[in-house]
Amino acid sequence: MGGRGAPAVPDLVARARQGDPAAVARLITLVEDASPLLREVMSALREHVGRAHVLGITGPPGVGKSTSTNALVAGMRRAGRRVGVLAIDPSSPFSGGALLGDRVRMGDHALDRDVFIRSMGARGHLGGLAWSTPQAVRVLDAAGCDVVVVETVGVGQSEVEVAGLADTTLVLVAPGMGDGIQAAKAGILEIGDVYVVNKADRDGADRTRRELRTMLSMADRPEGAWRPPVLRTVASTGTGIDEVLAEVDRHAAWLAESGELARRRTARARREVEAIALAALRERWGGAGGRGDLDGLAGRVAAGDVDPYAAADELLAQD
Amino acid sequence: MGGRGAPAVPDLVARARQGDPAAVARLITLVEDASPLLREVMSALREHVGRAHVLGITGPPGVGKSTSTNALVAGMRRAGRRVGVLAIDPSSPFSGGALLGDRVRMGDHALDRDVFIRSMGARGHLGGLAWSTPQAVRVLDAAGCDVVVVETVGVGQSEVEVAGLADTTLVLVAPGMGDGIQAAKAGILEIGDVYVVNKADRDGADRTRRELRTMLSMADRPEGAWRPPVLRTVASTGTGIDEVLAEVDRHAAWLAESGELARRRTARARREVEAIALAALRERWGGAGGRGDLDGLAGRVAAGDVDPYAAADELLAQD
Repeated sequence: MGGRGAPAVPDLVARARQGDPAAVARLITLVEDASPLLREVMSALREHVGRAHVLGITGPPGVGKSTSTNALVAGMRRAGRRVGVLAIDPSSPFSGGALLGDRVRMGDHALDRDVFIRSMGARGHLGGLAWSTPQAVRVLDAAGCDVVVVETVGVGQSEVEVAGLADTTLVLVAPGMGDGIQAAKAGILEIGDVYVVNKADRDGADRTRRELRTMLSMADRPEGAWRPPVLRTVASTGTGIDEVLAEVDRHAAWLAESGELARRRTARARREVEAIALAALRERWGGAGGRGDLDGLAGRVAAGDVDPYAAADELLAQD
Repeated sequence: MGGRGAPAVPDLVARARQGDPAAVARLITLVEDASPLLREVMSALREHVGRAHVLGITGPPGVGKSTSTNALVAGMRRAGRRVGVLAIDPSSPFSGGALLGDRVRMGDHALDRDVFIRSMGARGHLGGLAWSTPQAVRVLDAAGCDVVVVETVGVGQSEVEVAGLADTTLVLVAPGMGDGIQAAKAGILEIGDVYVVNKADRDGADRTRRELRTMLSMADRPEGAWRPPVLRTVASTGTGIDEVLAEVDRHAAWLAESGELARRRTARARREVEAIALAALRERWGGAGGRGDLDGLAGRVAAGDVDPYAAADELLAQD
C-alpha cells in the first residue's frame, strides 16, 4: 500500500505527541477500527503515557451529563489544563455506528486547541469499552492531556464499566432520583468517588443529596478509605463546578498517597490485556482461516449432537 | 462432601424432566452460580432439548414489559401450553445480586404448576446473558416447556443481546416512543420479529404504530424474508394479546420453513460455546493456581514496562 490510506505510525505518533489534533484523531480512529496498526501504535506510545488523570463521568439520561462535562472542561481550562474528552456513545453492533446526539452542546470547546473532544462508539467489540477506551486514553495522554474525561451515556452496565476505566469516577444524579431502589438498581452507589446532584436549583435537590449521603454512609468502609462527597451543581450556570473540580483533585491526591492509583491502573490494564488476548483468540477460532472450527461445533451443539461444554473443550483442544 | 449441599445431577435432571419445580429451580441456580456441576448437567440434558420455542420480550423501561409478559403467558396457558419465564434483571457485578423489582406482578401465575418463573441476574459473567441464558433455557426446555419466554429489562445492550438468544424477539414500544432517533438509538429496529405498541389506548398509539411501520419498511429485506408486523395491545386488559400470540406462532412456522431457525440456533450455540471457552481461559489466566500470570503482566503494563499487546502475546504464549 504505502499511499495516502496507510499512515506511517512513527510519524503519526510524533505528531500526536506534539498535540496535532488531526494526528490524535487519526490514532483514535485506528482504535475504533481495531486496526492491526494498533500494536505498533501502543508500542510507540508506551513510554509516553501514565501522566494524565482519567476522570469518568456518568449518570442516567437526562441528568445533564454533556452540560456538566462542558462546565467541568471549562473549569479545567481556566486552571490551564489540557483536556481530552472521550464521549462514549451507545452504538448498535448491528449498524456498527455511533449516533450523533447531544455532542452538539460540546461546541463551546470545539475550537479550543487545548481540548480534544471525541465521540466513540463501542461497536460491539468483545469487551467494548474495556478494550477500546484505555487505548484512546493512552493516545490523549501521550498527546499531553493533563486530564482525560471519559463520559458515558449512563445506561445499563456502562456506568459500571466506566468505573473500571477511570482513576476518579464522578456520578451525576438529578433531584428526585435518590430513592433507594432506583439508585441501587443503577448500581451507582458502588462506583462513585464523587457524587454530584446536578440541577440543584430544582425541588428535591437537598433531599436527594441527604438520601444519597445516608445511603453512602451505610457502606462498610475501612479506615483510611475514601469517603465519596456529595456535591451540588447547576451545570448550566457553572454553579458548584469549581467545588467539584477541587474534590476531583483531592481524590487524585488520595489515590496517589494511598496506593489506590496503582491498584486501579493495574486492574484496568488487567482487563485490557485480557480483552486483547480474548479478541485474538476469537479471531483465531472464528475468523476466516481460523484454526478452530467454531461454526461446525456450533452446528453440532444446535443439532443436539454435542453439549456446549464438550464443544468448548474441543475448541480449546484445537488451539 | 456428598451431604445435603451436593445434589446428585442424574437425580436432579430426572426430576426436572418430570417437571418438578424444585429441581428446575435448583438447576437454574447451578447455572446462575456457574457451578462446576453444569458440565455434567448440560451433558445429561443434551438429548432432551431443542423442542421449546424461545420468545424474547424486550423494550424500554415503563413500556409494560411485565404486564405484557403476564398477559402473554396467560394466553399461552389458555392454549394449553407449558411456559417457562426467565426474567433477566440488571445486576451489579459489585454486589453480585439481582434486585427484586416488578416481578411481584407475575404473581398471577406463581401457583400455576405449568408455568415456571425465574428471575435471573447476569452477575457480571463474561458474556453475561450469552453464557447463562441458553443454559437456563435448556433446563426449562428439558422440563417440558413448550415456550420459554426470556424477558429483559431493556437497557443498553440487553435488547440486542436478547435478540441473539431468542427464536422470536418481541419488541414492546409505548405511544410517543416512535420518533426516529430514539428508536434507532435503542437499536430496536434491527432486532424485532414482532413489534407491539402497548398502552394502545393512549394518545399517539396510532401515530407510533404508523411511524414504526414506515421505519421498518425502509429496511432492505430480501425476497421471502420475514416482515415484522406492528400490533397494538393494552396488556393490562388483555386487548390484542391473542393477535400477538398468533403472530408469534406465524413467525415460529416461518422460522422452521425458511431454515432460519437452524441458523439462529447455530448462531446462539456459537456464542455460547465461545463464552464457555473464554470463561475457561479467563480462569486459567487469572484464577488461583492459574498458569498465566495475568496480574503480573497487568502490573507491568500499568507501570509502562510493556504495552498491552505485547502483554497479551505473553499471556497467550503461556498457554
